[in-house]
Amino acid sequence: MSINIMTQDLMALHISQNAEAMERFVEEHPLADCAEALTELLDNQRLTAKEAGQLLLLISLEKQAALFGYFSLRWQEKLAEELNAQELAQMTELMPHDERADLLTQLEPEFQHQVLQQMDAEDRRDIQRLVSYPEESVGALMTSDFATLDAHQTVEEAINQLRKIASERETIYQAYVVDEQMHLQGTVSLRDLMISEPSLTVGKIMTQVLIFVRVDEAQNVAAQAISKYDLLALPVLDQQNRMVGIVTYDDAMDVAEEEADRSIHKSAAVDFSGNLKDASVGLMYRKRVFWLVLLVFGNLFSGAGIAYFEDTIQAYVALVFFLPLLIGSSGNAGAQSATLMVRAIATGEVIGKDWAKMLAKELFIAGLLGVTMAIAVSLLGLWRGGPEIALVVALTMQIVVVVGSLVGMSLPFILSKLKFDPASASAPLVTTIADAVGVIIYFSVATSILDFPAVG
Amino acid sequence: MSINIMTQDLMALHISQNAEAMERFVEEHPLADCAEALTELLDNQRLTAKEAGQLLLLISLEKQAALFGYFSLRWQEKLAEELNAQELAQMTELMPHDERADLLTQLEPEFQHQVLQQMDAEDRRDIQRLVSYPEESVGALMTSDFATLDAHQTVEEAINQLRKIASERETIYQAYVVDEQMHLQGTVSLRDLMISEPSLTVGKIMTQVLIFVRVDEAQNVAAQAISKYDLLALPVLDQQNRMVGIVTYDDAMDVAEEEADRSIHKSAAVDFSGNLKDASVGLMYRKRVFWLVLLVFGNLFSGAGIAYFEDTIQAYVALVFFLPLLIGSSGNAGAQSATLMVRAIATGEVIGKDWAKMLAKELFIAGLLGVTMAIAVSLLGLWRGGPEIALVVALTMQIVVVVGSLVGMSLPFILSKLKFDPASASAPLVTTIADAVGVIIYFSVATSILDFPAVG
Repeated sequence: MSINIMTQDLMALHISQNAEAMERFVEEHPLADCAEALTELLDNQRLTAKEAGQLLLLISLEKQAALFGYFSLRWQEKLAEELNAQELAQMTELMPHDERADLLTQLEPEFQHQVLQQMDAEDRRDIQRLVSYPEESVGALMTSDFATLDAHQTVEEAINQLRKIASERETIYQAYVVDEQMHLQGTVSLRDLMISEPSLTVGKIMTQVLIFVRVDEAQNVAAQAISKYDLLALPVLDQQNRMVGIVTYDDAMDVAEEEADRSIHKSAAVDFSGNLKDASVGLMYRKRVFWLVLLVFGNLFSGAGIAYFEDTIQAYVALVFFLPLLIGSSGNAGAQSATLMVRAIATGEVIGKDWAKMLAKELFIAGLLGVTMAIAVSLLGLWRGGPEIALVVALTMQIVVVVGSLVGMSLPFILSKLKFDPASASAPLVTTIADAVGVIIYFSVATSILDFPAVG
Repeated sequence: MSINIMTQDLMALHISQNAEAMERFVEEHPLADCAEALTELLDNQRLTAKEAGQLLLLISLEKQAALFGYFSLRWQEKLAEELNAQELAQMTELMPHDERADLLTQLEPEFQHQVLQQMDAEDRRDIQRLVSYPEESVGALMTSDFATLDAHQTVEEAINQLRKIASERETIYQAYVVDEQMHLQGTVSLRDLMISEPSLTVGKIMTQVLIFVRVDEAQNVAAQAISKYDLLALPVLDQQNRMVGIVTYDDAMDVAEEEADRSIHKSAAVDFSGNLKDASVGLMYRKRVFWLVLLVFGNLFSGAGIAYFEDTIQAYVALVFFLPLLIGSSGNAGAQSATLMVRAIATGEVIGKDWAKMLAKELFIAGLLGVTMAIAVSLLGLWRGGPEIALVVALTMQIVVVVGSLVGMSLPFILSKLKFDPASASAPLVTTIADAVGVIIYFSVATSILDFPAVG
């Protein structure tokens, strides 16, 4: 159903304040769509946060808790502020542990304190632990409501236990076999339990192949492991090898999406991951100005190259006609190479020892591209300036496409060797470097050929 | 464990041909790592496909079937060719239905026919149906081994049924309630079944909120739905509303990754998604040459602009010094805007009606960026050419940054309105257009100011 119809229904529910109808509405639509429709109404100021909060209070606590995580953190905070500490505490106790920790950190310290006071001690400790992990770490992504089993339990007992805790756990499809110190001994899937002899012990059927991440690793590492090993959830261990949480596949998907956003934006020299519509003017200015100004200084090298060859230009102004074309092609070829290489490094597809092989292949491809481009541009040269100019531009084109590709290919590798993020070898940076090199090659070729009228 | 140690173990197993030890090896390591280690040996020609195939035949059919999908399709094909039709048919009968269909399409028609002849009629029909869907469609991604239930079954009966079919189904955690014509009536999760009263009917507890995709839709649509609604699996319906398959979260992750690859590469005008290391020279040449040559013609506009202002350049050669810097900044600002906008459109974050608002914000940001850049460049102008040149370059910078951003902002939108892929508004294309516009602005400003020596 379209979000538009849902917003109309919600406005009607806002007027009627019919709790039963609101409960039915939330039953009948996917929670993600309910949150999207409410967000639409909030964004367009057709409902205030207070009014939306009232609508939420019409539904059961369970539904509130399940729905809340689908709002953006910004709206979660605004909506939470419209509830009192007790209402919020009751709801958050039922929320997934990772989502409630994210929400609580958004609140004003005083209100946060009030809410925590309303919760029981165990939930409070759990939240305080989860919020203590650094923002980009696995700890800040994982949830602590995972299902544990004992190796000595029988399969039948294990299934019964999972059944009992099903409603409070993020997932019961993957359970973790731990000892009393929470050391991870193995994992067992609900599917394995269901197809096993009920009298066997869990220890007998569990998988000991243990794929895990450390709590302080980058979130990306967890996302890549989940994708590579096709996992539903990945266990997280602390430095003492105790299991402290799991990262689920849906959170891994969000991380992968954010990473992709960031890579794409970096390719254009904007280090930004988030919602463009909501980003403030100041933030976007800061994210963009640094690179733009830096690239100005890069372009000075091109300018300096041109200044050096001023006499040549004065003598053959027609050369300037081909300037944007030649340095543009160098930059474009470089941007292509750099982007291909950055991505190949990021996905782990290319590692150090493959580089020489890749470089040789790239040089060959660039050579072919250069020949094609040189033929195209030489025709243009003939038409605009005669055979000498044609020779100059064709030769220049061949060289700059190869050199540009070489720059684009090497820069990400050099950056990654120097422990910088290879994605900083953005298209604009490569283009700027390739431009400067292109200018020098162009006028060097031109000066050496055009000074000897015998050629051509 | 590191892949290096695994490759050594595999070489030892290759020599000993010890079936029991090989079975244990596969038990003790994640399947993804086993496939990676074998691929490493195949890539480096330490094992031939024949030898690797022999190693695979040492393990049980179930393990073979589970492991096979972790190889690249290229190696799957080579390995399959080393088995005889009967061995391959036995293994593929146990493979996930989507993976075996992908594998079978790789085989030589005659061998494919032989393998299909060895399979039972139902499996044969299933494969023939799956391979008939177009390559980029949901049909080519989905698997047909999903779990179905009847609305009249009790919860207890349903759990027993899922238990029975667990080993042949891609997942039993999400089951689909269908009628005799395979019309989808609802879904029920194993978790819901486990926490429900055993005597209730499935129809009573199933969820009727139905999120599905059509078999002929783009794979991306399925991946986005799975991510948005946090699904384990998404049902796929044909045109007659019959359920024909499911797309699972792990396949959705692969699609999302491929899409991200493609977006990033498109941002540099290379429409390529795949493994760079394995891509042939011919393929990479074709993927890159089209845009490079096209952009040559784009750059001709810049050249033409320069030719038009040849007299101005002849009189003030110093202007050429600033040319790369000014048109470069215009292009860089444009590339930033375009990349932000393309991504925002792709993730559905920005839709048509938001455009005016975004444009206004973008213009404001570009204005601020322009002021910053103009101040920086005017100092340079003072130093290189005096106050008049400083005025020209500052004014030009302010204009070209705003115009460049405007081009970068508008082009993806115009392309998407014209039903082209907005990602084609790659950084190189935007840079080329912004360059040409920049040249004209630069020399227009220069001509009008420098012709009147009173200014400045």
